Amino acid sequence: MREGQVDAVHVTIAYHENFRETVLNVEQWNRWFEQFPHLIFHGKWASDIDRAKQTNRTAIFFGFQNPSPIEDDIGLIEVWHTLGARFMQLTYNNQSLLATGCYESTDAGITRMGKQVIKEMNRVGLVIDMSHSGDKSTIEAADISERPIAITHANPYDWMPALRNKRHEVISAVIDNGGMIGFSLYPHHLKGKSDCSLKEFCLMVANTAEKYGINHIGLGSDLCQDQPDSIVEWMRVGRWSKEMDYGEGTADAPGFPPMPVWFNDNRDFNNIENGLTEIGMSSDDISAFMGGNWYRFYADNFTPLNAGD
Amino acid sequence: MREGQVDAVHVTIAYHENFRETVLNVEQWNRWFEQFPHLIFHGKWASDIDRAKQTNRTAIFFGFQNPSPIEDDIGLIEVWHTLGARFMQLTYNNQSLLATGCYESTDAGITRMGKQVIKEMNRVGLVIDMSHSGDKSTIEAADISERPIAITHANPYDWMPALRNKRHEVISAVIDNGGMIGFSLYPHHLKGKSDCSLKEFCLMVANTAEKYGINHIGLGSDLCQDQPDSIVEWMRVGRWSKEMDYGEGTADAPGFPPMPVWFNDNRDFNNIENGLTEIGMSSDDISAFMGGNWYRFYADNFTPLNAGD
Repeated sequence: MREGQVDAVHVTIAYHENFRETVLNVEQWNRWFEQFPHLIFHGKWASDIDRAKQTNRTAIFFGFQNPSPIEDDIGLIEVWHTLGARFMQLTYNNQSLLATGCYESTDAGITRMGKQVIKEMNRVGLVIDMSHSGDKSTIEAADISERPIAITHANPYDWMPALRNKRHEVISAVIDNGGMIGFSLYPHHLKGKSDCSLKEFCLMVANTAEKYGINHIGLGSDLCQDQPDSIVEWMRVGRWSKEMDYGEGTADAPGFPPMPVWFNDNRDFNNIENGLTEIGMSSDDISAFMGGNWYRFYADNFTPLNAGD
Repeated sequence: MREGQVDAVHVTIAYHENFRETVLNVEQWNRWFEQFPHLIFHGKWASDIDRAKQTNRTAIFFGFQNPSPIEDDIGLIEVWHTLGARFMQLTYNNQSLLATGCYESTDAGITRMGKQVIKEMNRVGLVIDMSHSGDKSTIEAADISERPIAITHANPYDWMPALRNKRHEVISAVIDNGGMIGFSLYPHHLKGKSDCSLKEFCLMVANTAEKYGINHIGLGSDLCQDQPDSIVEWMRVGRWSKEMDYGEGTADAPGFPPMPVWFNDNRDFNNIENGLTEIGMSSDDISAFMGGNWYRFYADNFTPLNAGD
């Protein structure tokens, strides 16, 4: 991450873990923060990105891809914000207590508990992330939430019709309410998958900027660097199924797909910057896309409401 | 508390609760902070005492009378500090995984895990409290700890020979290592119990100041205002015994004893201030005893080591 000049990263610390198990993941990160203070520290506020730049380190922001860490207890939302969580998906592929995941056949929208949870997340400054949610749930969440929401990692469905990519009306609902979309570099979300060219990706960025404005898009790499295939299996089935579910993979190719040659790992962010320059994007727009927009979004959305007291 | 001009209070949020149960107690306090922001807020640093004074509110600092909230997991110490815990007793009357409680017949001193825990508490800024520990364990903790420790609520045994009060060598070990003792107003710890006079209490304060110096003593009221007797039963036996244990009470008088007339509840702190004036204590010394010493102790001991990064 230091080689790629990554000042801040939103890391996943829960896929299916319950409250106690997610706390164990925090403990693991705390040990890394203690062991490698010259490289990383726990990021909690936008100002930590400035601190990361000033001290040549990476600020690690915590997020959940599933609401499992709050179990059935709304009081855990504030507890998690205090422990540094800053993003929480309302669903991870499947139906949750809060909303419907993008792999379910019927999307019933935001549940009774989901409405209460959105209000509490708004209050404490925990961002609603709908990357793995159904279309109806996402549009409802964008409308119900009184603060902007995010799709932290997905691409436009019009560019690559993957189940996890987002249709125009979904992107519009998020952006019209002030939200952000982070573009994914996970091969299953790319046009041509692992063979997607840098230019194709950069043209998608430019076209999306033209359609929705430059201020509401950024990166959301979905990068699983140096993770074994056992991790992708945990992501896909957790404990919810005895049968294997291959998600976006197949029985023949169950593991992580190969990354595109121009984005192999955290060291390659400069390739994207160069690619955007080559297709003629202005340096201001590139800067907004590469981090400026997320910086502003972090500054606006991580603090509690009425924090002045 | 506002009527008694209490700017800060160290409240107990765990007696026998495990990690998850103590988090539920935090959630209850969070609801109170949300409902009564004009009266109370969660205190985390000495500067919150200034904020409390400036905004005419009371800063609530969290403490544990038992190490049960960390269970057998040293990683939970930093998690708890992040959640705002600032004091943790290594034992509550009984033997714990860390040390020996004051009701056990044999005190084996600080355990293997206890030594690791003391080091980690020092690192993160969680204060070691030995109010309910055995003499040997307390003296060892004071010596092993690289930061000052506290006996937050007890009185000198020489003044009132109660099991929970502290002998000279124990008080010396704590104070010689920079620590603090907070004097208790729980009747079982007072000379004459509920009939203890204000003057007797104030003379004990003055004598202790003369013996150990004014800078290491303060209040630690042990007040259980408006708590039902079911709470004292939970304190005494939790889940560790099927038989009732009356602690400092008896089968005939199992509930909370009546408070002394000059300290019925949180509104009566000014009586102590007046009592100290009447026996001739200087206003500087009274101010140190009533809060100044704890303020300095909080400022020195709640921050993590190497917090400059």
